[in-house]
Amino acid sequence: MKQSVFYIPTLKESPKDAEAKSHALMIRSGMIKQTAAGIYTYLPLGLKVLKKIEAIVRDEHHLLGCSEVLMPALQPKDLWEESGRWGAYGPELMRLSDRKDREFCLGPTHEEVITALVRDYLNSYKKLPVALYQIQTKFRDEMRPRFGLMRGREFIMKDLYTFHANEASLNQWYEDVKAMYSRIFDRCGLETKIVASNTGEIGGLEAHEFMVMSEVGEDTVVYCENSSEAYNIEATDLRPGDPCEGGGVVLSAEGIEVGNTFKIGTKYSASMNAFFQDDQGQRQPILMASYGIGIGRTLMAVVEQHATDKGLIWPKSLSPFDIHLIPLNPVDAPVQALYESLKARYDVLIDDRDERPGVKFNDAELIGIPIKVICGRGFSEGRVEFEALGIKKEVALNDLDQEIAQAMNA
Amino acid sequence: MKQSVFYIPTLKESPKDAEAKSHALMIRSGMIKQTAAGIYTYLPLGLKVLKKIEAIVRDEHHLLGCSEVLMPALQPKDLWEESGRWGAYGPELMRLSDRKDREFCLGPTHEEVITALVRDYLNSYKKLPVALYQIQTKFRDEMRPRFGLMRGREFIMKDLYTFHANEASLNQWYEDVKAMYSRIFDRCGLETKIVASNTGEIGGLEAHEFMVMSEVGEDTVVYCENSSEAYNIEATDLRPGDPCEGGGVVLSAEGIEVGNTFKIGTKYSASMNAFFQDDQGQRQPILMASYGIGIGRTLMAVVEQHATDKGLIWPKSLSPFDIHLIPLNPVDAPVQALYESLKARYDVLIDDRDERPGVKFNDAELIGIPIKVICGRGFSEGRVEFEALGIKKEVALNDLDQEIAQAMNA
Repeated sequence: MKQSVFYIPTLKESPKDAEAKSHALMIRSGMIKQTAAGIYTYLPLGLKVLKKIEAIVRDEHHLLGCSEVLMPALQPKDLWEESGRWGAYGPELMRLSDRKDREFCLGPTHEEVITALVRDYLNSYKKLPVALYQIQTKFRDEMRPRFGLMRGREFIMKDLYTFHANEASLNQWYEDVKAMYSRIFDRCGLETKIVASNTGEIGGLEAHEFMVMSEVGEDTVVYCENSSEAYNIEATDLRPGDPCEGGGVVLSAEGIEVGNTFKIGTKYSASMNAFFQDDQGQRQPILMASYGIGIGRTLMAVVEQHATDKGLIWPKSLSPFDIHLIPLNPVDAPVQALYESLKARYDVLIDDRDERPGVKFNDAELIGIPIKVICGRGFSEGRVEFEALGIKKEVALNDLDQEIAQAMNA
Repeated sequence: MKQSVFYIPTLKESPKDAEAKSHALMIRSGMIKQTAAGIYTYLPLGLKVLKKIEAIVRDEHHLLGCSEVLMPALQPKDLWEESGRWGAYGPELMRLSDRKDREFCLGPTHEEVITALVRDYLNSYKKLPVALYQIQTKFRDEMRPRFGLMRGREFIMKDLYTFHANEASLNQWYEDVKAMYSRIFDRCGLETKIVASNTGEIGGLEAHEFMVMSEVGEDTVVYCENSSEAYNIEATDLRPGDPCEGGGVVLSAEGIEVGNTFKIGTKYSASMNAFFQDDQGQRQPILMASYGIGIGRTLMAVVEQHATDKGLIWPKSLSPFDIHLIPLNPVDAPVQALYESLKARYDVLIDDRDERPGVKFNDAELIGIPIKVICGRGFSEGRVEFEALGIKKEVALNDLDQEIAQAMNA
């Protein structure tokens, strides 16, 4: 891909309103741009990484036997009245009327829609369990949108809903999905902690959150004494190591919630009439669970964990490109040949812009592709500068393939 | 993929309110389900085909040098006031207020957002042309939503916006994108006609539409005398061959508009202050064009063109799976081994459900995967039934690979 057409509008200065280093860096490196408070556009670089996170999420969901659907953002009021949440949900629910004055909300979550979707069809224990997920845009009218993609008003989530004939199946899936979530975050290069949480606006039997330890999160993560379970409390002034009123000591002053799991039970199926016939011929409400991953938040948490002062260094699984090829002079035939040769085997970004070396180096550092090949003064004599794994060295063109292969497999 | 978990809720009867055969078939075959009037959920089968259309669209856009972005659905009123469209757009524009009474619309198109996005950065002719596109969910409050995905209120579109320093570049891109659109629809197995159209709510210098001839469209397509250009008029009672008041004869009574192109010019750049410095140092408004493809509509048009009375037969490029493996008895070790062997090389759907053969055959016909392998009575003696290209025959297991390869390459 040619950098001249990929549209990476980098900035020299940090935006004034960026409170988190990841937020500042994502804007400076041309990954995202604000369209309104808490509402962002993903630019090509940010979107390319986002798609890599989505691909990992899809891969793990398919391995577990989940099927992908796509539900609408517009949700009719009547479904939310069936569940009782139209009245119960706070001002975070964005509501609107159509031209015929019928009321809708912009979905912050899809328990009602999915329950209505399956309730006619999942009428027998023989058809259960079923696991349906989507990657979709959600809406929540935050009082104070902040930290860029972390607390936005329009955001991309993966949400999974599972349906069960009995508790054993519900519990088994609940544990399987938690294990899958750990694998997903692991593949994204993120360290997470699972903490117990309250069931909040989703409701149900129990809930957990996947937290990334960070300075910019909004929760305080506490580890309990005599227990392997952590829990989280609203942001406080407590520091790591401080004892906590509810027991345990503070593990991290702040955490970013990147995933959550809700063992719901029958809250929606009972109120919305989603019943099945069990193997004894008895009519029963379907047992449900729902599970979420903030896709944009995950991206932001990765940037937060992998950022340096000058830019970021992507984990290999999420890097927008494999190699950043940086010719310091206008692209001539030998550089073009090198680009073609690399492009045949790797995903390469070539900085073909008519810019000074300093501009190119600064942008490359901001963008953070882990392998850089620089065609500078020695190029006409068959040498390039090679940068990977934090080491910069001069390499003969003949040895470049081997160096790249080593760095890619490291 | 196991059919038991892929969630394909087929229906025996056509839904009463489905006016178009594609609409009825997509619901009967479990591809989509209505959530509210003009608002649909894509079920796993429908979404899988949708993603194949999206992949073709992305592939062609990347070949042309376009970069993908993702803009928000929520668009602030102030941007639409800058362009003058907040007042000009009709009741199709869905409007809402946030908790602080600031007004937004749900974007039916993104000229304002993208112009605001690039206007600070594209300040020199050296940075032009730029081509940015997205595949994103759009909203339009249709008075009469109908024909399923054809005239919906929430729908998926690809929209491309190009920015130019001069007319030559604008015109060249306009023709290049039209040629790309023809390739995209061709790869989707769709026959389309390009017709001249008015510039409507987008505005600009000229516009074209890509029409699929059909009985369920909403436009009458007319061919002009002494011209290679067609145009379209609002749906009338005219039949093919009838002369038309505006000149030419009716080519098709109805057409489905699957794509459109707008050579905009400076309408948005001039009103929204998106200027660049040209090679003479003069300040000029950026020249723009915008181009759309209805992704869901394209899917529906494909179904409309490829449907039979009993189901559909997918063009190979869009088939949700390569092979439908249909064991008539419970899946035993030899069937499982066949499935594993096929799965290693092809995308296979196996009907592992505990259902009668009649149910399996009916569903398979509805779903329309072009290659079917049926493990029935002869299977224990090493024979399967093989169905492809409309021909059904018995095949020895030893010859199956060759038959599949032939059918795949046909």
